[in-house]
Amino acid sequence: MADDTFGAADRDFLGLALEGDGRSSFELTPGLARFDGRLYGGSAVAIAVAAAEAETGRAALWSTVQFVAFAELGAHLSCRTEVLASGRRVSQVRVTATEGERVVFVALGACADQRPDGFAGQFEVMPAYAPPDECPPFHPRSEAPAAFQHRTDGYQRVTDFRQAVRTGPKSPGGRMALWACVRDHVATPAMLGFLADMVPVSIARAGGRAGAGTSLDNTLRFGPRGEATWVLVDLDPHLAAGGYGHGTVHLWAPDGTLLATGSQTASMLLFD
Amino acid sequence: MADDTFGAADRDFLGLALEGDGRSSFELTPGLARFDGRLYGGSAVAIAVAAAEAETGRAALWSTVQFVAFAELGAHLSCRTEVLASGRRVSQVRVTATEGERVVFVALGACADQRPDGFAGQFEVMPAYAPPDECPPFHPRSEAPAAFQHRTDGYQRVTDFRQAVRTGPKSPGGRMALWACVRDHVATPAMLGFLADMVPVSIARAGGRAGAGTSLDNTLRFGPRGEATWVLVDLDPHLAAGGYGHGTVHLWAPDGTLLATGSQTASMLLFD
Repeated sequence: MADDTFGAADRDFLGLALEGDGRSSFELTPGLARFDGRLYGGSAVAIAVAAAEAETGRAALWSTVQFVAFAELGAHLSCRTEVLASGRRVSQVRVTATEGERVVFVALGACADQRPDGFAGQFEVMPAYAPPDECPPFHPRSEAPAAFQHRTDGYQRVTDFRQAVRTGPKSPGGRMALWACVRDHVATPAMLGFLADMVPVSIARAGGRAGAGTSLDNTLRFGPRGEATWVLVDLDPHLAAGGYGHGTVHLWAPDGTLLATGSQTASMLLFD
Repeated sequence: MADDTFGAADRDFLGLALEGDGRSSFELTPGLARFDGRLYGGSAVAIAVAAAEAETGRAALWSTVQFVAFAELGAHLSCRTEVLASGRRVSQVRVTATEGERVVFVALGACADQRPDGFAGQFEVMPAYAPPDECPPFHPRSEAPAAFQHRTDGYQRVTDFRQAVRTGPKSPGGRMALWACVRDHVATPAMLGFLADMVPVSIARAGGRAGAGTSLDNTLRFGPRGEATWVLVDLDPHLAAGGYGHGTVHLWAPDGTLLATGSQTASMLLFD
């Protein structure tokens, strides 16, 4: 573990306490929950990223989180972070989060030191949307299956979402976008993970249905770090088959910098 | 483990021997190697998928493989497949491949029973390319860093690649495509994984450089099963920062069915 201040703002937000020897823990507070009081997928990604960065002292490069079991409001979760390989610049990491003996989620990922003269480039252009303050609010809760018990306002209490209004030509396929921020927090890799868990909504909409999904996993890949708070969550649904949907997400800073891309598979829940 | 014939063609191709109790093993033969004799990333994905399908008796839905250490030609690798959660339709699985005590790769993923009446749809259209027999050969070996020792023809001995020739308008960004097949094998999820390990080449090209990369991971998400042998490996480089590149891949059957999508992060190796 390197510099104690690296990632400190993320750990404070998440309530992630470092206990040494690759161990850490957090409590499932309302801000980390879905509306039914269960662990929000974006929280799990943020925890996995923050735990990996704390253990390696390096910046997150990619992370895949597999959702194994539910956890409920008030649960105390323990994380074990293992560095499977540590090279000159890259650490390959595994994080396992448990409640008692029960595995709640498992993550793989890498953290890396950037090479200052390393290959760099952005090969995509941000689609044109009106800025966040010109876009209407979006309430993730209204997209949640009606069958959910609404026990809490969940992550909505710490985030703002807007339905992004397209100003250019309509995007092909089912592409749609939201503006999102964690209030008063820079969009670090952990916070990008927190905001990106929206692919299933876009898959349902692409098929002309109202619904969402139970995420089976969430993968994020991180590019250059920025100082943005608002990010454009640019959703690209790919396909659904046999009740399971896949899609990707691009996360853009308002200045057009591509901060991260992600992908996700979900068991679809439709309610119309 | 269910039906013994499910996945048998994949296991035969890979030389994956099932040993019961979640254990299996394979030898790193030339057809599973890179040109320098080390384990080819696509082989690891195919092994992870085949091991997970064999253990659960269910079809692969997604898989993320993390590359932890190299293995050399002739190595004997042991795989341990753990079912972390098994629901009515979905099994969440972890596969760990070791050579002796040393971890070579770790995979997470899910296998699932399709719901026959489940939500289905394809939200993207295949880009227009000439068919494989009208496209010139592509030799992955010529894209491999010159610094590699070329010890074997590797996976090139069991595959065919063509440089796909665009017949529609030029794609935006650095998008490029290859036709690919595993000779005499239907493009099952395992075989799609075998063929998809080409994102780093597209990232280098998008930046106007010759090169490839050392994959840190490979994630694939599987859609409808088909009977195709040739697939269009449609590569979409996203960005590179500090020497690390990210991008996605779409895998299309010749009839325009989207069979799978994937994503990958690599430490870039440039040789010009």
